[in-house]
Amino acid sequence: MKYFVLGSTYVVRLDAGERIVETLAALCERDAIGGGFFNGLGAVSEAEIGHFDPAAKAYSWIALSGPLEIVSLYGNITKVDAKPFIHAHIALGDKEFAVRGGHLKEAVVSVTCEVTLTRFRDDIGRTKDEATGFSKLALEPGRD
Amino acid sequence: MKYFVLGSTYVVRLDAGERIVETLAALCERDAIGGGFFNGLGAVSEAEIGHFDPAAKAYSWIALSGPLEIVSLYGNITKVDAKPFIHAHIALGDKEFAVRGGHLKEAVVSVTCEVTLTRFRDDIGRTKDEATGFSKLALEPGRD
Amino acid sequence: MKYFVLGSTYVVRLDAGERIVETLAALCERDAIGGGFFNGLGAVSEAEIGHFDPAAKAYSWIALSGPLEIVSLYGNITKVDAKPFIHAHIALGDKEFAVRGGHLKEAVVSVTCEVTLTRFRDDIGRTKDEATGFSKLALEPGRD
Repeated sequence: MKYFVLGSTYVVRLDAGERIVETLAALCERDAIGGGFFNGLGAVSEAEIGHFDPAAKAYSWIALSGPLEIVSLYGNITKVDAKPFIHAHIALGDKEFAVRGGHLKEAVVSVTCEVTLTRFRDDIGRTKDEATGFSKLALEPGRD
Repeated sequence: MKYFVLGSTYVVRLDAGERIVETLAALCERDAIGGGFFNGLGAVSEAEIGHFDPAAKAYSWIALSGPLEIVSLYGNITKVDAKPFIHAHIALGDKEFAVRGGHLKEAVVSVTCEVTLTRFRDDIGRTKDEATGFSKLALEPGRD
Repeated sequence: MKYFVLGSTYVVRLDAGERIVETLAALCERDAIGGGFFNGLGAVSEAEIGHFDPAAKAYSWIALSGPLEIVSLYGNITKVDAKPFIHAHIALGDKEFAVRGGHLKEAVVSVTCEVTLTRFRDDIGRTKDEATGFSKLALEPGRD
Protein backbone atom coordinates (compact mmCIF):
# COMPACT_ATOMS: atom_id res chain seq x y z
CA MET A 1 0.00 0.00 0.00
CA LYS A 2 1.18 3.46 -0.86
CA TYR A 3 -0.53 6.74 -0.25
CA PHE A 4 -0.22 10.43 -0.76
CA VAL A 5 -1.83 13.02 1.48
CA LEU A 6 -3.30 16.25 0.17
CA GLY A 7 -4.82 18.25 2.99
CA SER A 8 -7.61 16.07 4.35
CA THR A 9 -7.66 13.74 1.34
CA TYR A 10 -5.62 10.57 0.95
CA VAL A 11 -4.94 8.95 -2.40
CA VAL A 12 -4.28 5.30 -1.63
CA ARG A 13 -3.03 2.49 -3.84
CA LEU A 14 -3.50 -1.07 -2.64
CA ASP A 15 -1.49 -3.76 -4.35
CA ALA A 16 -2.08 -7.37 -5.34
CA GLY A 17 -2.62 -9.60 -2.33
CA GLU A 18 -3.58 -6.82 0.06
CA ARG A 19 -6.87 -7.06 1.89
CA ILE A 20 -8.94 -3.91 1.42
CA VAL A 21 -10.66 -3.58 4.81
CA GLU A 22 -7.61 -4.65 6.81
CA THR A 23 -5.26 -2.38 4.87
CA LEU A 24 -7.47 0.70 5.08
CA ALA A 25 -8.00 0.08 8.80
CA ALA A 26 -4.22 -0.14 9.28
CA LEU A 27 -3.71 3.15 7.43
CA CYS A 28 -6.35 4.81 9.62
CA GLU A 29 -4.76 3.37 12.75
CA ARG A 30 -1.33 4.63 11.72
CA ASP A 31 -2.55 8.14 10.95
CA ALA A 32 -5.09 8.29 13.79
CA ILE A 33 -8.07 8.63 11.44
CA GLY A 34 -11.26 8.07 13.45
CA GLY A 35 -13.74 9.58 11.01
CA GLY A 36 -13.98 9.87 7.26
CA PHE A 37 -15.23 8.31 4.06
CA PHE A 38 -13.83 6.88 0.85
CA ASN A 39 -14.57 5.73 -2.68
CA GLY A 40 -12.57 3.24 -4.66
CA LEU A 41 -12.18 1.22 -7.83
CA GLY A 42 -9.89 -1.56 -9.00
CA ALA A 43 -10.05 -5.32 -9.10
CA VAL A 44 -10.07 -8.20 -6.63
CA SER A 45 -9.46 -11.93 -6.81
CA GLU A 46 -11.58 -12.86 -3.81
CA ALA A 47 -14.26 -11.19 -1.77
CA GLU A 48 -16.70 -11.97 0.97
CA ILE A 49 -19.84 -9.87 0.95
CA GLY A 50 -22.88 -9.90 3.17
CA HIS A 51 -26.58 -9.20 3.15
CA PHE A 52 -28.21 -8.17 6.44
CA ASP A 53 -31.41 -9.92 7.39
CA PRO A 54 -33.25 -7.67 9.86
CA ALA A 55 -35.47 -10.56 10.98
CA ALA A 56 -32.49 -12.75 11.91
CA LYS A 57 -30.44 -9.71 13.02
CA ALA A 58 -27.53 -11.29 11.17
CA TYR A 59 -25.68 -11.21 7.89
CA SER A 60 -25.71 -14.00 5.36
CA TRP A 61 -22.42 -14.22 3.48
CA ILE A 62 -21.18 -15.23 0.08
CA ALA A 63 -17.58 -15.84 -0.94
CA LEU A 64 -16.78 -14.77 -4.50
CA SER A 65 -13.64 -15.53 -6.44
CA GLY A 66 -12.21 -15.10 -9.91
CA PRO A 67 -11.22 -11.86 -11.57
CA LEU A 68 -13.74 -9.30 -10.32
CA GLU A 69 -13.86 -5.60 -11.11
CA ILE A 70 -14.66 -3.26 -8.24
CA VAL A 71 -17.59 -1.59 -9.98
CA SER A 72 -18.22 0.62 -6.95
CA LEU A 73 -16.84 0.91 -3.44
CA TYR A 74 -17.95 3.40 -0.83
CA GLY A 75 -17.38 3.31 2.87
CA ASN A 76 -17.00 5.31 6.02
CA ILE A 77 -14.55 5.30 8.89
CA THR A 78 -15.53 5.44 12.53
CA LYS A 79 -13.79 4.69 15.79
CA VAL A 80 -15.07 1.67 17.68
CA ASP A 81 -13.42 0.34 20.85
CA ALA A 82 -10.57 2.82 20.32
CA LYS A 83 -9.79 1.42 16.86
CA PRO A 84 -10.67 2.59 13.34
CA PHE A 85 -13.63 0.69 11.96
CA ILE A 86 -14.33 0.42 8.22
CA HIS A 87 -17.93 0.10 7.04
CA ALA A 88 -18.07 -0.35 3.28
CA HIS A 89 -20.41 -1.61 0.58
CA ILE A 90 -19.15 -2.89 -2.73
CA ALA A 91 -20.40 -3.87 -6.20
CA LEU A 92 -18.32 -6.47 -8.02
CA GLY A 93 -18.49 -7.28 -11.74
CA ASP A 94 -17.52 -10.62 -13.22
CA LYS A 95 -16.28 -11.40 -16.73
CA GLU A 96 -19.86 -11.48 -18.02
CA PHE A 97 -20.20 -7.95 -16.57
CA ALA A 98 -22.86 -9.21 -14.14
CA VAL A 99 -22.80 -7.31 -10.87
CA ARG A 100 -23.24 -8.66 -7.36
CA GLY A 101 -23.00 -6.50 -4.30
CA GLY A 102 -23.54 -5.96 -0.62
CA HIS A 103 -21.75 -5.29 2.62
CA LEU A 104 -17.98 -5.76 2.25
CA LYS A 105 -16.50 -8.11 4.81
CA GLU A 106 -13.16 -8.38 3.06
CA ALA A 107 -11.66 -8.56 -0.41
CA VAL A 108 -8.21 -9.36 -1.74
CA VAL A 109 -6.81 -6.99 -4.35
CA SER A 110 -5.72 -8.59 -7.62
CA VAL A 111 -4.30 -5.96 -9.97
CA THR A 112 -4.71 -2.74 -8.06
CA CYS A 113 -7.19 -0.81 -5.96
CA GLU A 114 -7.31 2.99 -6.04
CA VAL A 115 -9.00 4.80 -3.20
CA THR A 116 -9.64 8.45 -2.41
CA LEU A 117 -10.29 8.92 1.29
CA THR A 118 -11.32 12.09 3.08
CA ARG A 119 -10.53 12.22 6.77
CA PHE A 120 -12.47 14.21 9.33
CA ARG A 121 -10.81 16.25 12.00
CA ASP A 122 -13.09 14.63 14.58
CA ASP A 123 -13.71 10.99 15.40
CA ILE A 124 -17.14 9.48 14.75
CA GLY A 125 -18.32 6.72 17.06
CA ARG A 126 -20.80 3.85 16.90
CA THR A 127 -23.31 2.54 19.42
CA LYS A 128 -24.85 -0.91 19.49
CA ASP A 129 -28.55 -0.71 18.73
CA GLU A 130 -30.32 -3.48 20.62
CA ALA A 131 -33.40 -3.42 18.40
CA THR A 132 -31.45 -4.40 15.28
CA GLY A 133 -28.22 -5.78 16.63
CA PHE A 134 -26.44 -3.30 14.44
CA SER A 135 -23.80 -0.76 15.51
CA LYS A 136 -25.17 2.57 14.37
CA LEU A 137 -23.40 5.88 13.96
CA ALA A 138 -23.32 7.69 17.28
CA LEU A 139 -24.09 11.23 16.24
CA GLU A 140 -25.05 14.12 18.37
CA PRO A 141 -26.29 17.08 16.40
CA GLY A 142 -23.15 19.17 16.14
CA ARG A 143 -21.79 22.08 14.25
CA ASP A 144 -18.36 23.32 13.48
CA MET B 1 -32.29 11.19 11.50
CA LYS B 2 -29.21 12.47 13.26
CA TYR B 3 -26.32 14.37 11.80
CA PHE B 4 -23.00 15.88 12.63
CA VAL B 5 -21.49 18.79 10.76
CA LEU B 6 -17.78 19.08 10.07
CA GLY B 7 -17.06 22.19 8.04
CA SER B 8 -18.88 21.67 4.74
CA THR B 9 -19.44 17.94 5.31
CA TYR B 10 -22.43 16.37 7.02
CA VAL B 11 -22.40 12.87 8.45
CA VAL B 12 -26.02 11.74 8.47
CA ARG B 13 -27.66 8.69 9.98
CA LEU B 14 -31.15 7.79 8.81
CA ASP B 15 -33.10 5.35 10.91
CA ALA B 16 -35.58 2.56 10.26
CA GLY B 17 -38.77 3.82 8.66
CA GLU B 18 -37.30 7.08 7.36
CA ARG B 19 -37.59 7.89 3.69
CA ILE B 20 -34.20 8.70 2.18
CA VAL B 21 -35.13 11.39 -0.37
CA GLU B 22 -37.68 13.08 1.86
CA THR B 23 -35.39 13.07 4.90
CA LEU B 24 -32.34 14.40 3.06
CA ALA B 25 -34.49 17.11 1.44
CA ALA B 26 -35.79 18.10 4.89
CA LEU B 27 -32.24 18.34 6.24
CA CYS B 28 -31.25 20.53 3.29
CA GLU B 29 -34.30 22.71 3.76
CA ARG B 30 -33.56 23.14 7.46
CA ASP B 31 -29.92 24.07 6.90
CA ALA B 32 -30.52 26.05 3.69
CA ILE B 33 -28.44 23.70 1.56
CA GLY B 34 -29.12 24.48 -2.10
CA GLY B 35 -26.11 22.75 -3.64
CA GLY B 36 -24.04 19.72 -2.79
CA PHE B 37 -23.58 16.01 -3.25
CA PHE B 38 -23.61 12.84 -1.17
CA ASN B 39 -22.77 9.17 -1.02
CA GLY B 40 -24.42 6.60 1.18
CA LEU B 41 -24.76 2.98 2.22
CA GLY B 42 -27.11 1.01 4.43
CA ALA B 43 -30.23 -1.05 3.91
CA VAL B 44 -33.83 -0.45 2.90
CA SER B 45 -37.07 -2.40 3.14
CA GLU B 46 -38.77 -0.76 0.18
CA ALA B 47 -37.68 1.30 -2.77
CA GLU B 48 -39.07 2.74 -5.96
CA ILE B 49 -36.53 3.21 -8.71
CA GLY B 50 -36.88 4.49 -12.25
CA HIS B 51 -35.42 4.13 -15.70
CA PHE B 52 -35.72 7.10 -18.06
CA ASP B 53 -36.91 6.41 -21.57
CA PRO B 54 -35.73 9.29 -23.77
CA ALA B 55 -38.21 8.32 -26.51
CA ALA B 56 -41.20 8.54 -24.15
CA LYS B 57 -39.60 11.41 -22.19
CA ALA B 58 -40.74 9.59 -19.08
CA TYR B 59 -39.57 7.24 -16.38
CA SER B 60 -40.76 3.68 -15.99
CA TRP B 61 -40.83 2.61 -12.36
CA ILE B 62 -40.39 -0.52 -10.34
CA ALA B 63 -41.25 -1.02 -6.67
CA LEU B 64 -38.87 -3.29 -4.80
CA SER B 65 -39.33 -4.73 -1.33
CA GLY B 66 -37.66 -7.13 1.06
CA PRO B 67 -34.34 -6.67 2.80
CA LEU B 68 -32.17 -4.78 0.31
CA GLU B 69 -28.62 -3.59 0.82
CA ILE B 70 -27.80 -0.13 -0.51
CA VAL B 71 -24.87 -1.27 -2.64
CA SER B 72 -24.26 2.27 -3.85
CA LEU B 73 -25.99 5.63 -3.49
CA TYR B 74 -24.83 8.88 -5.01
CA GLY B 75 -26.78 12.05 -5.51
CA ASN B 76 -26.65 15.78 -5.81
CA ILE B 77 -28.58 18.64 -4.28
CA THR B 78 -29.93 21.57 -6.22
CA LYS B 79 -32.52 24.24 -5.55
CA VAL B 80 -35.68 24.02 -7.63
CA ASP B 81 -38.68 26.31 -7.08
CA ALA B 82 -36.98 27.67 -3.95
CA LYS B 83 -36.73 24.21 -2.38
CA PRO B 84 -33.88 21.69 -2.11
CA PHE B 85 -34.14 19.01 -4.75
CA ILE B 86 -32.47 15.61 -4.41
CA HIS B 87 -31.34 13.78 -7.55
CA ALA B 88 -29.92 10.38 -6.69
CA HIS B 89 -29.19 7.03 -8.28
CA ILE B 90 -29.02 3.82 -6.30
CA ALA B 91 -27.94 0.19 -6.63
CA LEU B 92 -29.78 -2.29 -4.41
CA GLY B 93 -28.69 -5.83 -3.63
CA ASP B 94 -31.06 -8.61 -2.63
CA LYS B 95 -30.38 -11.71 -0.55
CA GLU B 96 -29.02 -13.50 -3.61
CA PHE B 97 -26.60 -10.55 -3.97
CA ALA B 98 -28.19 -9.67 -7.31
CA VAL B 99 -28.13 -5.94 -7.96
CA ARG B 100 -30.80 -3.78 -9.51
CA GLY B 101 -30.46 -0.05 -9.92
CA GLY B 102 -31.60 3.21 -11.42
CA HIS B 103 -32.97 6.61 -10.52
CA LEU B 104 -34.06 6.75 -6.89
CA LYS B 105 -37.62 7.96 -6.43
CA GLU B 106 -37.82 6.99 -2.78
CA ALA B 107 -36.67 4.28 -0.40
CA VAL B 108 -37.55 3.40 3.17
CA VAL B 109 -34.62 2.69 5.52
CA SER B 110 -34.71 -0.67 7.29
CA VAL B 111 -31.70 -1.01 9.58
CA THR B 112 -29.73 2.16 9.01
CA CYS B 113 -28.52 4.45 6.26
CA GLU B 114 -25.22 6.31 6.56
CA VAL B 115 -24.61 9.30 4.34
CA THR B 116 -21.72 11.71 3.89
CA LEU B 117 -22.91 14.93 2.30
CA THR B 118 -20.82 17.86 1.14
CA ARG B 119 -22.60 21.17 0.88
CA PHE B 120 -21.66 23.96 -1.47
CA ARG B 121 -21.56 27.56 -0.43
CA ASP B 122 -23.63 28.45 -3.48
CA ASP B 123 -26.97 27.15 -4.68
CA ILE B 124 -27.15 25.20 -7.93
CA GLY B 125 -30.34 25.50 -10.00
CA ARG B 126 -32.11 23.42 -12.64
CA THR B 127 -33.83 24.39 -15.89
CA LYS B 128 -36.45 22.39 -17.73
CA ASP B 129 -35.05 21.16 -21.04
CA GLU B 130 -37.90 21.00 -23.55
CA ALA B 131 -36.08 18.59 -25.85
CA THR B 132 -35.92 15.84 -23.25
CA GLY B 133 -38.50 16.86 -20.67
CA PHE B 134 -35.73 16.64 -18.11
CA SER B 135 -34.69 19.34 -15.61
CA LYS B 136 -30.99 19.83 -16.24
CA LEU B 137 -28.40 21.49 -14.08
CA ALA B 138 -28.45 25.23 -14.75
CA LEU B 139 -24.76 26.05 -14.79
CA GLU B 140 -23.09 29.16 -15.98
CA PRO B 141 -19.36 28.80 -16.27
CA GLY B 142 -18.18 30.23 -12.97
CA ARG B 143 -15.12 30.37 -10.89
CA ASP B 144 -14.47 31.00 -7.27
CA MET C 1 -20.64 20.54 -21.33
CA LYS C 2 -21.09 23.24 -18.74
CA TYR C 3 -19.48 23.51 -15.37
CA PHE C 4 -19.34 25.61 -12.27
CA VAL C 5 -16.35 25.81 -9.98
CA LEU C 6 -16.64 26.08 -6.20
CA GLY C 7 -13.22 26.10 -4.61
CA SER C 8 -11.68 22.76 -5.51
CA THR C 9 -14.99 21.20 -6.60
CA TYR C 10 -16.43 21.28 -10.10
CA VAL C 11 -20.09 20.67 -10.84
CA VAL C 12 -20.20 19.43 -14.41
CA ARG C 13 -23.13 18.82 -16.74
CA LEU C 14 -22.54 16.73 -19.83
CA ASP C 15 -25.15 16.87 -22.55
CA ALA C 16 -26.64 14.43 -25.03
CA GLY C 17 -24.07 13.14 -27.48
CA GLU C 18 -21.04 14.00 -25.37
CA ARG C 19 -18.55 11.28 -24.54
CA ILE C 20 -17.93 11.08 -20.80
CA VAL C 21 -14.24 10.15 -20.68
CA GLU C 22 -13.25 12.40 -23.55
CA THR C 23 -15.21 15.37 -22.22
CA LEU C 24 -13.92 15.08 -18.65
CA ALA C 25 -10.36 14.72 -19.96
CA ALA C 26 -10.83 17.87 -22.05
CA LEU C 27 -12.08 19.79 -19.02
CA CYS C 28 -9.08 18.62 -17.00
CA GLU C 29 -6.72 19.57 -19.82
CA ARG C 30 -8.27 23.02 -20.10
CA ASP C 31 -8.06 23.71 -16.36
CA ALA C 32 -4.73 21.93 -15.84
CA ILE C 33 -6.22 19.31 -13.50
CA GLY C 34 -3.68 16.52 -13.04
CA GLY C 35 -5.13 14.93 -9.93
CA GLY C 36 -8.60 14.46 -8.53
CA PHE C 37 -11.66 12.25 -8.35
CA PHE C 38 -15.32 12.37 -9.30
CA ASN C 39 -18.70 10.78 -8.93
CA GLY C 40 -21.54 10.99 -11.40
CA LEU C 41 -25.03 9.95 -12.40
CA GLY C 42 -27.20 10.35 -15.48
CA ALA C 43 -27.98 8.27 -18.54
CA VAL C 44 -26.15 7.06 -21.62
CA SER C 45 -27.17 5.64 -24.98
CA GLU C 46 -23.98 3.68 -25.61
CA ALA C 47 -21.10 2.49 -23.51
CA GLU C 48 -18.06 0.30 -23.80
CA ILE C 49 -16.96 -1.31 -20.55
CA GLY C 50 -14.15 -3.69 -19.77
CA HIS C 51 -13.16 -6.48 -17.44
CA PHE C 52 -9.46 -6.99 -16.73
CA ASP C 53 -8.11 -10.51 -16.97
CA PRO C 54 -4.92 -10.65 -14.90
CA ALA C 55 -3.88 -13.91 -16.60
CA ALA C 56 -4.08 -12.38 -20.08
CA LYS C 57 -2.95 -8.96 -18.81
CA ALA C 58 -5.68 -7.51 -20.99
CA TYR C 59 -9.24 -6.23 -20.87
CA SER C 60 -12.16 -7.96 -22.49
CA TRP C 61 -14.76 -5.48 -23.70
CA ILE C 62 -18.48 -5.30 -24.17
CA ALA C 63 -20.42 -2.65 -26.08
CA LEU C 64 -23.79 -1.80 -24.57
CA SER C 65 -26.52 0.28 -26.14
CA GLY C 66 -30.08 1.36 -25.49
CA PRO C 67 -31.29 3.66 -22.75
CA LEU C 68 -29.03 2.96 -19.77
CA GLU C 69 -29.06 4.68 -16.39
CA ILE C 70 -25.69 5.49 -14.87
CA VAL C 71 -26.35 3.67 -11.60
CA SER C 72 -22.90 4.59 -10.31
CA LEU C 73 -19.81 6.28 -11.70
CA TYR C 74 -16.60 6.90 -9.82
CA GLY C 75 -13.21 7.73 -11.19
CA ASN C 76 -9.92 9.42 -10.58
CA ILE C 77 -7.75 11.81 -12.54
CA THR C 78 -4.02 11.43 -12.97
CA LYS C 79 -1.46 12.89 -15.33
CA VAL C 80 0.06 10.44 -17.79
CA ASP C 81 2.44 11.52 -20.56
CA ALA C 82 1.74 15.15 -19.66
CA LYS C 83 -2.00 14.74 -20.23
CA PRO C 84 -4.94 14.20 -17.87
CA PHE C 85 -5.92 10.55 -17.68
CA ILE C 86 -9.37 9.43 -16.54
CA HIS C 87 -9.72 6.07 -14.79
CA ALA C 88 -13.36 5.30 -14.04
CA HIS C 89 -15.62 2.39 -13.25
CA ILE C 90 -19.32 2.44 -14.00
CA ALA C 91 -22.52 0.51 -13.26
CA LEU C 92 -25.24 0.74 -15.90
CA GLY C 93 -28.88 -0.19 -15.46
CA ASP C 94 -31.16 -1.24 -18.30
CA LYS C 95 -34.94 -0.95 -18.55
CA GLU C 96 -35.35 -4.19 -16.59
CA PHE C 97 -33.22 -2.54 -13.86
CA ALA C 98 -30.53 -5.17 -14.37
CA VAL C 99 -27.07 -3.79 -13.72
CA ARG C 100 -23.86 -4.50 -15.61
CA GLY C 101 -20.59 -2.85 -14.77
CA GLY C 102 -16.85 -2.64 -15.10
CA HIS C 103 -14.05 -0.41 -16.28
CA LEU C 104 -15.37 2.50 -18.33
CA LYS C 105 -13.72 2.84 -21.72
CA GLU C 106 -16.21 5.36 -23.03
CA ALA C 107 -19.91 6.18 -22.91
CA VAL C 108 -22.14 8.56 -24.82
CA VAL C 109 -24.53 10.70 -22.78
CA SER C 110 -28.20 10.45 -23.70
CA VAL C 111 -30.27 12.75 -21.51
CA THR C 112 -27.75 14.27 -19.15
CA CYS C 113 -24.81 13.38 -16.96
CA GLU C 114 -24.13 15.21 -13.70
CA VAL C 115 -20.69 15.00 -12.18
CA THR C 116 -19.10 16.40 -9.04
CA LEU C 117 -15.33 16.49 -9.38
CA THR C 118 -12.78 17.42 -6.75
CA ARG C 119 -9.42 18.55 -8.03
CA PHE C 120 -6.16 18.19 -6.16
CA ARG C 121 -3.60 20.92 -5.97
CA ASP C 122 -0.92 18.43 -6.98
CA ASP C 123 -0.66 16.14 -9.98
CA ILE C 124 -0.77 12.38 -9.45
CA GLY C 125 1.18 10.20 -11.88
CA ARG C 126 1.06 6.60 -13.06
CA THR C 127 3.82 4.06 -13.70
CA LYS C 128 3.58 0.98 -15.89
CA ASP C 129 3.75 -2.15 -13.77
CA GLU C 130 5.43 -4.87 -15.80
CA ALA C 131 4.03 -7.71 -13.67
CA THR C 132 0.43 -6.90 -14.54
CA GLY C 133 0.70 -4.70 -17.61
CA PHE C 134 -1.33 -2.14 -15.72
CA SER C 135 -0.44 1.52 -15.13
CA LYS C 136 -0.58 1.95 -11.38
CA LEU C 137 -0.77 5.09 -9.31
CA ALA C 138 2.73 6.44 -8.77
CA LEU C 139 2.59 7.51 -5.15
CA GLU C 140 5.40 8.43 -2.90
CA PRO C 141 4.36 8.69 0.71
CA GLY C 142 3.75 12.39 1.04
CA ARG C 143 2.19 14.80 3.41
CA ASP C 144 0.86 18.26 3.09
